[in-house]
Amino acid sequence: MKKAVVLLSGGLDSATVLAIAKSQGYQSYCLSLDYHQRHVAELQAASRVAKVLAAVAHKTVLLDLSMFGGSALTDNNIDVPESPSVGIPVTYVPARNTIMLSLALAWAETLGAQDIFIGVNALDYSGYPDCRGEYVEAFQRMANLATKSAVEGKTITVHAPLIDMSKAQIIQCGNALGFDYGMTVSCYQADAQGLACGLCDSCRFRKEGFAVAGLPDPTHYQPLVG
Amino acid sequence: MKKAVVLLSGGLDSATVLAIAKSQGYQSYCLSLDYHQRHVAELQAASRVAKVLAAVAHKTVLLDLSMFGGSALTDNNIDVPESPSVGIPVTYVPARNTIMLSLALAWAETLGAQDIFIGVNALDYSGYPDCRGEYVEAFQRMANLATKSAVEGKTITVHAPLIDMSKAQIIQCGNALGFDYGMTVSCYQADAQGLACGLCDSCRFRKEGFAVAGLPDPTHYQPLVG
Repeated sequence: MKKAVVLLSGGLDSATVLAIAKSQGYQSYCLSLDYHQRHVAELQAASRVAKVLAAVAHKTVLLDLSMFGGSALTDNNIDVPESPSVGIPVTYVPARNTIMLSLALAWAETLGAQDIFIGVNALDYSGYPDCRGEYVEAFQRMANLATKSAVEGKTITVHAPLIDMSKAQIIQCGNALGFDYGMTVSCYQADAQGLACGLCDSCRFRKEGFAVAGLPDPTHYQPLVG
Repeated sequence: MKKAVVLLSGGLDSATVLAIAKSQGYQSYCLSLDYHQRHVAELQAASRVAKVLAAVAHKTVLLDLSMFGGSALTDNNIDVPESPSVGIPVTYVPARNTIMLSLALAWAETLGAQDIFIGVNALDYSGYPDCRGEYVEAFQRMANLATKSAVEGKTITVHAPLIDMSKAQIIQCGNALGFDYGMTVSCYQADAQGLACGLCDSCRFRKEGFAVAGLPDPTHYQPLVG
């Protein structure tokens, strides 16, 4: 069985990617990032998802991105928007996907893995630049110049299987693979129990996704939202 | 004055790069990485160098790369070679420069800086793939697809001013800028006081550099080495 490093946030997209990697016969080594994000409940969700989808290993890297600030997800002084923003919203975390893919690259090399999976998606998304296909391709190209393994012929492929899927298609895919989305947390401001606000970008895309997919929304919402 | 993020290890190369950035009129924001490396004395050296070269700020990111292993610099069970190796040596740290440049990219974006400096050099070096010009170019290309700033027109330039310089030329450059290399630590297995072994790759390149440059070697060696 081939080994793959799967970036796992604990949200809907990355859980679907893990289910896809599993269905393709990969042994999954899941990597999460504790970057002092506002929504720590997603890390607990990541642990649940890794266990349920039989990951071989799950590591959580501690890296305090709040030391750089610049995002509503790492700076408690910046509010998470509860209505659609113009342009790239303040929930964008500078260079986050680049940092996560770099860590995945390090682990892949020591594991002897040649495959990295990431749940970026450029259709029903917030416009983050590091979620686009051309970005993923540029990362892969750079990665294959960066490592000893690549130089020795063991090149890396960065898989972004969701890149051109709508949120509804992603949900239908995971549903077809038998995955229970109730255990994931997407909300940017989930409370300590992992209950979702229902208002932020991430909640809205998710809620609409279930509606369009014609599937019941298993998300656990905070009481006031209903 | 333009702001730049300067990756600063505490060794000879990155100190020279900081001196160069300063001479070019940049306000320097220095970034070091505490990755649980064997040679922690280099981080103390980084602090001294940042202070002496009047950096505006100096941050040290804590990130335990020993969790991935695979290098003599992060795994105490792998010895640092004390004679030249064939191929890329075991002191190579998987994806280290990619991780450091990614962190620099995050900070640059929140600072509004468009310049990152890194002290890689592909002449008198250990053959690490992430020290080559084509790697640096690929990183810059990826970075300019990754960030909100780049998408909005504030592109990033990754400067690697030492890329084609010999170790002797690097030393002559720093010397011309009045920099005292006695405060830097290059040794992969420096002791707690920062005293160098004189035997590892890094020590050998440095020692030969001072000899070829015709300058006294200000390195503080461990007593037995002389």
